[in-house]
Amino acid sequence: MTTRKMKAAIFVAPGRIVLDEKPVPEVGALDALLRVTTTTICGTDVHILKGEYPVARGLTIGHEPVGVIERLGSAVRGYLEGQRVVSGAITPSGWSNACLCGVCSQDGAGTEHGWKAMGGWKLGNTIDGCQAEFVLVPDAMANLAPVPDDLSDEQVLMCPDIMSTGFSGAETAGVGIGDMVAVFAQGPIGLCATAGAKLSGASLVIGVDRLPDRLAMARQMGADHVIDSSRVDPVAEIMRLTHGRGVDVAIEALGTQQTFDASLRALRPGGTLSSLGVYSTDLTIPLGPFGAGLGDHKIVTTLCPGGKERMRRLMAVIAARRVDLSAMVTHRFKLDDIEAAYELFSHQRDGVLKVAITP
Amino acid sequence: MTTRKMKAAIFVAPGRIVLDEKPVPEVGALDALLRVTTTTICGTDVHILKGEYPVARGLTIGHEPVGVIERLGSAVRGYLEGQRVVSGAITPSGWSNACLCGVCSQDGAGTEHGWKAMGGWKLGNTIDGCQAEFVLVPDAMANLAPVPDDLSDEQVLMCPDIMSTGFSGAETAGVGIGDMVAVFAQGPIGLCATAGAKLSGASLVIGVDRLPDRLAMARQMGADHVIDSSRVDPVAEIMRLTHGRGVDVAIEALGTQQTFDASLRALRPGGTLSSLGVYSTDLTIPLGPFGAGLGDHKIVTTLCPGGKERMRRLMAVIAARRVDLSAMVTHRFKLDDIEAAYELFSHQRDGVLKVAITP
Amino acid sequence: MTTRKMKAAIFVAPGRIVLDEKPVPEVGALDALLRVTTTTICGTDVHILKGEYPVARGLTIGHEPVGVIERLGSAVRGYLEGQRVVSGAITPSGWSNACLCGVCSQDGAGTEHGWKAMGGWKLGNTIDGCQAEFVLVPDAMANLAPVPDDLSDEQVLMCPDIMSTGFSGAETAGVGIGDMVAVFAQGPIGLCATAGAKLSGASLVIGVDRLPDRLAMARQMGADHVIDSSRVDPVAEIMRLTHGRGVDVAIEALGTQQTFDASLRALRPGGTLSSLGVYSTDLTIPLGPFGAGLGDHKIVTTLCPGGKERMRRLMAVIAARRVDLSAMVTHRFKLDDIEAAYELFSHQRDGVLKVAITP
Amino acid sequence: MTTRKMKAAIFVAPGRIVLDEKPVPEVGALDALLRVTTTTICGTDVHILKGEYPVARGLTIGHEPVGVIERLGSAVRGYLEGQRVVSGAITPSGWSNACLCGVCSQDGAGTEHGWKAMGGWKLGNTIDGCQAEFVLVPDAMANLAPVPDDLSDEQVLMCPDIMSTGFSGAETAGVGIGDMVAVFAQGPIGLCATAGAKLSGASLVIGVDRLPDRLAMARQMGADHVIDSSRVDPVAEIMRLTHGRGVDVAIEALGTQQTFDASLRALRPGGTLSSLGVYSTDLTIPLGPFGAGLGDHKIVTTLCPGGKERMRRLMAVIAARRVDLSAMVTHRFKLDDIEAAYELFSHQRDGVLKVAITP
Repeated sequence: MTTRKMKAAIFVAPGRIVLDEKPVPEVGALDALLRVTTTTICGTDVHILKGEYPVARGLTIGHEPVGVIERLGSAVRGYLEGQRVVSGAITPSGWSNACLCGVCSQDGAGTEHGWKAMGGWKLGNTIDGCQAEFVLVPDAMANLAPVPDDLSDEQVLMCPDIMSTGFSGAETAGVGIGDMVAVFAQGPIGLCATAGAKLSGASLVIGVDRLPDRLAMARQMGADHVIDSSRVDPVAEIMRLTHGRGVDVAIEALGTQQTFDASLRALRPGGTLSSLGVYSTDLTIPLGPFGAGLGDHKIVTTLCPGGKERMRRLMAVIAARRVDLSAMVTHRFKLDDIEAAYELFSHQRDGVLKVAITP
Repeated sequence: MTTRKMKAAIFVAPGRIVLDEKPVPEVGALDALLRVTTTTICGTDVHILKGEYPVARGLTIGHEPVGVIERLGSAVRGYLEGQRVVSGAITPSGWSNACLCGVCSQDGAGTEHGWKAMGGWKLGNTIDGCQAEFVLVPDAMANLAPVPDDLSDEQVLMCPDIMSTGFSGAETAGVGIGDMVAVFAQGPIGLCATAGAKLSGASLVIGVDRLPDRLAMARQMGADHVIDSSRVDPVAEIMRLTHGRGVDVAIEALGTQQTFDASLRALRPGGTLSSLGVYSTDLTIPLGPFGAGLGDHKIVTTLCPGGKERMRRLMAVIAARRVDLSAMVTHRFKLDDIEAAYELFSHQRDGVLKVAITP
Repeated sequence: MTTRKMKAAIFVAPGRIVLDEKPVPEVGALDALLRVTTTTICGTDVHILKGEYPVARGLTIGHEPVGVIERLGSAVRGYLEGQRVVSGAITPSGWSNACLCGVCSQDGAGTEHGWKAMGGWKLGNTIDGCQAEFVLVPDAMANLAPVPDDLSDEQVLMCPDIMSTGFSGAETAGVGIGDMVAVFAQGPIGLCATAGAKLSGASLVIGVDRLPDRLAMARQMGADHVIDSSRVDPVAEIMRLTHGRGVDVAIEALGTQQTFDASLRALRPGGTLSSLGVYSTDLTIPLGPFGAGLGDHKIVTTLCPGGKERMRRLMAVIAARRVDLSAMVTHRFKLDDIEAAYELFSHQRDGVLKVAITP
Repeated sequence: MTTRKMKAAIFVAPGRIVLDEKPVPEVGALDALLRVTTTTICGTDVHILKGEYPVARGLTIGHEPVGVIERLGSAVRGYLEGQRVVSGAITPSGWSNACLCGVCSQDGAGTEHGWKAMGGWKLGNTIDGCQAEFVLVPDAMANLAPVPDDLSDEQVLMCPDIMSTGFSGAETAGVGIGDMVAVFAQGPIGLCATAGAKLSGASLVIGVDRLPDRLAMARQMGADHVIDSSRVDPVAEIMRLTHGRGVDVAIEALGTQQTFDASLRALRPGGTLSSLGVYSTDLTIPLGPFGAGLGDHKIVTTLCPGGKERMRRLMAVIAARRVDLSAMVTHRFKLDDIEAAYELFSHQRDGVLKVAITP
């Protein structure tokens, strides 16, 4: 096994992710080796490509795997080789102190204190990822979820990251029946947040973006109203739509000061700002909209929930036809052409939302 | 009644709060008129004095009343004239949309939408307050809590504001058994937050301040460790005390960028920053400690919970001797001398923590 | 006003609710007098009729009012005479200790301790109800919610009770995205629980009943599967549908030992039984399904949430077309014919689900 | 290793637990073998002894181990042989679906659906326990918590079961600052529930039992009032102490119909019954105190929370001297004398609360 080679998308240097050969990884006692059948590129991968998010040179990129179990670690029970499975982008150990406290995404498996910031994000971050022919999933028993036969790879391709992340924007904020929710930015994560808010019982979901295609998709994902922020002030428009009250929950799904600021301003007193974006600068909380600290506001953040139970639930939602995210796969590439896929995706050309990569 | 006069501490202009005469207020159907027996000065009143927090000229200041019912509004039931009662600083109506959603401090009674930012804070803010011989408590049935006979005015004097606010710092953050908590600043609110964290089951409460007297009082209120931030870096010291892990909850109780920043840095991944301070500038969230938005952090704020049930519970805690805040009353003044009390309190002279004012 | 007469459905004796004349009530300071435009009969009213639930002889029955404000109490602000409004079946004061703790349905306004079992249910229980030409709504400012112009009386007729109650079955249980839920009995409340579970993001909603019409309506309200419990064992069927795991939440919506028992048996370990039914006998918790007390089960009960904010939210859900309950109004009667309506409804003739009564 | 022998307390038949020899177990990849230094007998072990709770004949009993790591499984990282550790009575895998949903005690590791009723309780139930010279802890990385040097074995001996269980009675019920709590039965679990309620901020904790020694110990654990239920009706007395209101939370800590019934009757409307007892018969919920299902009551159950993070937290509470449970160890035995210990403990002779067993 050790001398077998595979193709993988490797971070070489800022600006360069290239397809190259690497050894197929060796399988540790708790690992599973997947033969990747479908994967995708995430906005975070573009941050890595641009050198904005640092990873080790030589690392295989990618954290959204659908695949078939090629080989199981010696201590792994409950799975069969040949089984089709999905793993979350976040692969908690299950046994760290963080996990046992319910904060699995901050998994600290192997650290002294059992908590590590963003420690649950391993694939394509701290260990080799899945834009490759094969990927090693750590702590396999906590992370592999069998894919129901009646769901295609593409149907579950959003589960590992953007569906889990986007939905969590509504979940962490506690969106419930009758809430009014605004979602700032309708990229892949924002679209899933829109769908998640609707699915949680919101009576009014407002999608905000500057691209007509994305606003159209926002409607498809459940937005009751959409606001083109290139044409109108979204906060003023939200205040108009909510008759001056503000929304119960604002979801930030882009990662900029501007959308963070607008999210806070769009809230009713006592509302919740649910932040999903990956920021690249310090953030400013404006004094007035924050009520000088006296507004009973909450600002909550969520890193993509992972683990096999989360994957099982998300796939159940898809199987029940409660949401259909398949329209978000706008382009398809072979792994051999992944550099072209990065070129397209990183420049957001041709209306791309998500690409499907098949080794 | 209308021509009767009373003494009241009145905001005249920035820098000037003076004792003057005013008519005793008329009693509306839902109001109660209290003869104030004991009240106090709050840090917020000093902000008003300095012109940092704007209120109408001519307003009576003060929001922490203990008193005796002088007269009840025509629609008020369930109380007797002559009864000794306390009212919270925040006086929710009970019937606004905000109240009926459980966000009583953002009470919007009388507004179009039923929500108003900080709308629950009326006394000494939007209506006349209680640094006077008499005070009108609105929505009396929601706000008057009888004081048990075996508790003195001074024993319950912290209930209306600082005890309710300080405790809420721990409560909103969900402090539970075994949590590690740091409280930044040990003024009156921070000291109550320290007591509240201890009372909620924290296994480690760390009090931070720069004044030795306050650190000594922090120990008395339940801090297991105190950190003099004028001598050591509190974040480094907290990391040392928590063996590199960080605290589960950090409570900000001052209202400055520096303590807000330190609170965030002191957290473990997934921890909660519970903010109580009144800020006077925009705030900056530093990118790194915030995990670029991926740290599963929560930032929660709380405006002093009010209402008669809250007061009842806080008095029950005092009556059960679970906390003793009486040591926080360091100075006593007659209402006639309230200008001197402001002089002392606003300059934090003579180790003052809280003053008792008796008309 | 006092000598004006109106028609009202009055409880005379077990087995007899008759339409008779009564004085139009006098309006107290906090009350509002509504001219009832549409109301309905509830299953609870049938319990009253049969003498199973005791009320005072001479009481006007009915707790689901849609109407127009005829006259406002002297202390009521924020409404206009002539406004079309709805009030919940439960009319919390807003200012009792129970309300200020968020347990509004156990409102204890006017009692010594501020808590009274079921104290929020006043209309047609402890004070005159709304199966009449006029009804007095107590604590009007906490309870009257203006009806949006684009919603008809019938469209909001389910808000006061069955929609609020049914939805709360899902809400109190914390149903979230991806949950599996079974709802036992598909009468009006169960149908609303079915809709509420679906609206809360459940991936699988199973409706159980013995009547084909109700099972058909269950599908219309969002059930993914229906089980005819007159033909198959519903627990066995639920286990089959959930692949042996059991549901996350079971909602009891009938009020019998049999459905309570089945609800518990249908749960996965650690699941929640959400009970909405009104029971008429002691209940038995079977030892085995309860895991001898070690199953981490929760049994939660909810009395219909009321108050104007609740009504506002439910109407927003209807206005947003998230649910359409209008198909549940199967029959219409004039108030003059209410005795015939009771006859039909109490015998569940002619496929009746809910009747609309118009004075 | 395989032929090495050890002494172990073995269930032979109802009425017979005997000390005998067994092979020291073999260590699987995820296991750790502990050399037991201190353990104890639990009330559940007495149920096993009496044949009331069925286990396999030949099983080693005991689920409260303090010990030293003798040998680590090949896949276990992060521990050292020779380290002193404690493991919970409940040993979750960390990676089952139940664990990943936060319901670790219903761990379904190795089952088809990932949930198994009481599946987290393995030691002395479904696998060999720790009343022996050695014990195998499964899923060691999720379960072993190092004992701080300054805590003795006896000081942490209550962590694995009764402290974790007792505290959870208050935690699951959400006991908070100012709550009134009654704890029915002051055996080892009830005493810990009393301590846990006090530690959670209750303003009034009422301990109920029939034995004067236990009532005295209840006061030592934090009860503000104690009620001898052999002399007075505890519900009437609780109503007197709460001025007719009832308690916010009642904790059942015995497992009988009588205490379950009294717990429900002692609650205020909307209160929570937190059940910890192991029942041996079906339970009856009395109709009236249950408000016919309309009282907004909650009945919650908790199986002892386990896992290394729980153990770490409980030890932190002890190290911080927030509680001192050492007085509960009333008797000490050598493992060689464990049959005598069972004799004493099962008959509750000599005021026994807990025994320490040292191999």
